[in-house]
Amino acid sequence: MRMYDIIKNKRDGKELSTEEIKFFIEGYVNDDIPDYQAAALCMAIYFKGMTTREIRDLTFAVRDSGERLDFSSIKGIRVDKHSTGGVGDKTSLVVAPIVASLGVKVAKMSGRGLGHTGGTIDKLEAITGFNTTLSEEDFLKQVNEIGIAIVGQSKALAPADKKLYALRDVTATVDSLPLIISSIMGKKLAADDDCIVLDVKTGSGAFAQTLEESETLARCMVEIGKAAGKKTLALITDMDRPLGKAIGNSLEVIEAVDTLKGNGPEDFTEVCIILATDMLYLADMGTREECEAMVKKAIADGSALETLIKMVKAQGGDVNLILDTENFTKAKYCYEVKAREEGYIFKVDTAGYGKASLLLGAGRNTKEEDIDYSAGIILCKKTGDYVKEGETLAILYTNDLNRIINSEVEFLRSTTISKEKPENRPLVFKRVE
Amino acid sequence: MRMYDIIKNKRDGKELSTEEIKFFIEGYVNDDIPDYQAAALCMAIYFKGMTTREIRDLTFAVRDSGERLDFSSIKGIRVDKHSTGGVGDKTSLVVAPIVASLGVKVAKMSGRGLGHTGGTIDKLEAITGFNTTLSEEDFLKQVNEIGIAIVGQSKALAPADKKLYALRDVTATVDSLPLIISSIMGKKLAADDDCIVLDVKTGSGAFAQTLEESETLARCMVEIGKAAGKKTLALITDMDRPLGKAIGNSLEVIEAVDTLKGNGPEDFTEVCIILATDMLYLADMGTREECEAMVKKAIADGSALETLIKMVKAQGGDVNLILDTENFTKAKYCYEVKAREEGYIFKVDTAGYGKASLLLGAGRNTKEEDIDYSAGIILCKKTGDYVKEGETLAILYTNDLNRIINSEVEFLRSTTISKEKPENRPLVFKRVE
Repeated sequence: MRMYDIIKNKRDGKELSTEEIKFFIEGYVNDDIPDYQAAALCMAIYFKGMTTREIRDLTFAVRDSGERLDFSSIKGIRVDKHSTGGVGDKTSLVVAPIVASLGVKVAKMSGRGLGHTGGTIDKLEAITGFNTTLSEEDFLKQVNEIGIAIVGQSKALAPADKKLYALRDVTATVDSLPLIISSIMGKKLAADDDCIVLDVKTGSGAFAQTLEESETLARCMVEIGKAAGKKTLALITDMDRPLGKAIGNSLEVIEAVDTLKGNGPEDFTEVCIILATDMLYLADMGTREECEAMVKKAIADGSALETLIKMVKAQGGDVNLILDTENFTKAKYCYEVKAREEGYIFKVDTAGYGKASLLLGAGRNTKEEDIDYSAGIILCKKTGDYVKEGETLAILYTNDLNRIINSEVEFLRSTTISKEKPENRPLVFKRVE
Repeated sequence: MRMYDIIKNKRDGKELSTEEIKFFIEGYVNDDIPDYQAAALCMAIYFKGMTTREIRDLTFAVRDSGERLDFSSIKGIRVDKHSTGGVGDKTSLVVAPIVASLGVKVAKMSGRGLGHTGGTIDKLEAITGFNTTLSEEDFLKQVNEIGIAIVGQSKALAPADKKLYALRDVTATVDSLPLIISSIMGKKLAADDDCIVLDVKTGSGAFAQTLEESETLARCMVEIGKAAGKKTLALITDMDRPLGKAIGNSLEVIEAVDTLKGNGPEDFTEVCIILATDMLYLADMGTREECEAMVKKAIADGSALETLIKMVKAQGGDVNLILDTENFTKAKYCYEVKAREEGYIFKVDTAGYGKASLLLGAGRNTKEEDIDYSAGIILCKKTGDYVKEGETLAILYTNDLNRIINSEVEFLRSTTISKEKPENRPLVFKRVE
C-alpha cells in the first residue's frame, strides 16, 4: 500500500478502504508518512468528502492511535456531553454538575479554546488554583467520590488527532466535515463513557452555518457513536447568537454560577436544562419529563451548585470565587459600546463577537499565547432587542487599553441594526437520535 | 501576507494576486514555507484551477526563482522546441540537427524521462560517452561553432520547479494544468531563446487526453510565451499511438538516425518535418513552403545528419554508433509478442506501451533508478494495421529475462484488436499561434 495511491484515490473521488484509512493514520502517527502527504490528503478530503463508512473508519483509527481509557472502576453510568464549539458556550460548567448531583457520573475531558471559540479547560483555569491535570488514578477516584471531574485531554489520548489538527490548522483544512467528525468523535470514543450527548451548534458562530449541514454533522456523529457501542444523541442548538450574555473566561464562569443559582440568562438556562435532561434520559434516569423535573430541582435546591463547589475544591480551585463571584479579579478597563443608530438588533455575526472577545485578550490566536482570564464581553442587548442611538450594546473588559479599539470595530461590524424586527429563532432546532 | 490565507483563498476558489503567487514561490524556494503548506496549495490548485493571469504569474515566479541564462553571445536566432511528453517521442534528436544545419541556433536544455514518458537527455546518454553537462562557457561556444548543443537542465535554473515537481510527484498533484504549464514554461523562459515551438501531445499517452484539453493547454502556454517576449507557437500532435516504431533509449536514437538518413517511419518523419518547418518559420527563415523545402533538403543531402554527428563528437559521444547504428549494444534478450486474435489494431493505450517499456528497464519509477539503455520495444504493428492470430505485434528488448512477462501483459492489455477498422487520426491536429 502506498500513501501516494491513497491521496490519488481520494483526489479522484474514490471511497478509501478501511485498510487504506488505517494505513494512513498509523503511518502518520509513526512518522512514516510525512506531513506533506497528509496535507495533500486532507485537502483532497476537503474537496471530495467521505462516506459515513469512511468517516467511521477514520474516527476509529484516530481513537485507536493512542491510549484507550478504562473507566470500569467508576461505579454507575458515565455520561459525557460534547459541543461542536461556540461563543459564550459555558454549558459544560452547568450541565456536568447538574447531572453529577443526580447520581450520573461525569468523567470529562475537555479542550482549550482556539480561534473565536472558547474551551471549558480555559474557563476552569480562570478559577485560581484549579488543576486541570490529574493522574488517571486521582481522576477516577474523584469521580467515584463526588461524581464529577473535568480535566484536559491526556497527551496519550488520540495522538493522531493532535498531529492532524495541528496540520489542518495551518493548511486551511479545518472546515471539513469528515475531518471535524473524526477529530471530535475519535477523542470522545477513546474515553470510556456509556452515553454521549452531542451539542451540535448551527449558525454564524458555528462550523455548520446552515441547519442542513448541522443535521448532516449530527446524524453522522450519532451513527458513529452508536457504531462504537455508546448510547448517543445530538441536539442541534442555535449559535447564530452567543449563548447567554457573557463571553470570556471568568465572565462565563460567573454566568455559569449565576445559572446554577437560578439567576442565569433565560436562553442559556433553557439550553442547559434541555441538555442536562437528555443526559439523564440517556443514562436511563427516567422519562424526559421526569428527568427535566430532576434537573430543575437540582438547580432550585442548590445541589447542582454544591456539586460544582465540591469539584472546584477537589481540584484545588479557590472556592471563595464560586461562593461569591464578586471575588473574581476584575479587568482593569471596561468600555461601553454604544449603538450608532436606533432599531432592532436584526442579526449578529457570532464568530465576529468571538473574535472581538479574542481581540480583548480572552482567547488565543496560536496555541502558545497566554489568556487574559478577566477579558471578555458582557452583552447588554441581544438579537431581537430594540436599541436607541447611544444606548449601550455591550461592555468590553480588558487589561490592555490598546485592545479596545479593534475589538469595538469588530463588535460593531458584527452587529446589524435594522428597522425590521427579526423572526424568532428557536434555541434548540432538532434532536437527532 | 500569510501562506495560510493563500491556501484558503485558492481553496475557496478565489483568484490569487501576483503578490500572493510571488510570496508562495519565493518563500517555498527559501524554505520559509514548509512542504505541507505547499502540498495543500497544490491540491487546492488541482481542484480549483487558475486563471491565465495566475498561471502567467506562477510561471514568471518559477522562472525568476533562480538563475536566468544569457544567450546574447550566441550569434543568430535561437529557437527551442519543447514537447509536453510522450512515448517514443525522439523528435528533438531529429529536428534540432535539422534546423541547426540550416543556420538557426539550438541551445537546448532537456529533461530526463519519468514514469511512462521518455526524456531527451536519457536518449542522448544511450550514446556512449555523450556528456550532457557542459559549463555555460563551453555550451555557448559549441552553439556558436556548430550551431547546436543539448544539455541537461542546470541545477540553478528554476529551482522552484525542481522542488515543486518533487513534491507534486509524491502528493498526486502532477496532473494539474496550471502546475504543468508553470513547470514547463518556467524552465523554458529561464533560458534565453528568441522562439519557442511547443509540441503539445494529445491522446492516451499524453497528460491532455482530449483535443479540447490539449488546446486549452496550448493556448495558455503560447500566451505566456508571448507575454514573456518570445515568439511562440504550439502544434497539437497525436499521442494516441506512440510516435514511430521505437520506444526505449538506444532504440529511439537508432530510429532518429534512420530518420535523418531519410529511412525513418512515415508518421515520425512527417511530424519531424512539420515541427522543424515551424521552428524555421518562427525564426524568419522564409514562408512555410520555403522552410519545408529547406527541411526536406537538409535530410536528403545529409547535412542534418552531419550536424548530429558534429554535436555527438563535440559532446564526447561515440560517433561510430551514429555512423553505423549496428554498433549499439543489443539487449541480451528479445521476445516477440504475438497477436492472440485476428483483426485491426483498433486502439492502443499509449501510456500502457510506455509502461511496458518501463517494465523492460527502459525508464525509471523513481529518480534514483538506473536505466537499461538497450531495453525497449519495437512495434511491428500500429493502430489501423491488420493482424492475423499469431502474428508478431512487437518485439520486447531487455537485459533481464524476468521483466518480460509483466511487460508483455501490460503491452497486450494496452492493445485493442477489433473486427472494426479504426478511423484515421491526423498526426497534427492544430496549430495554435
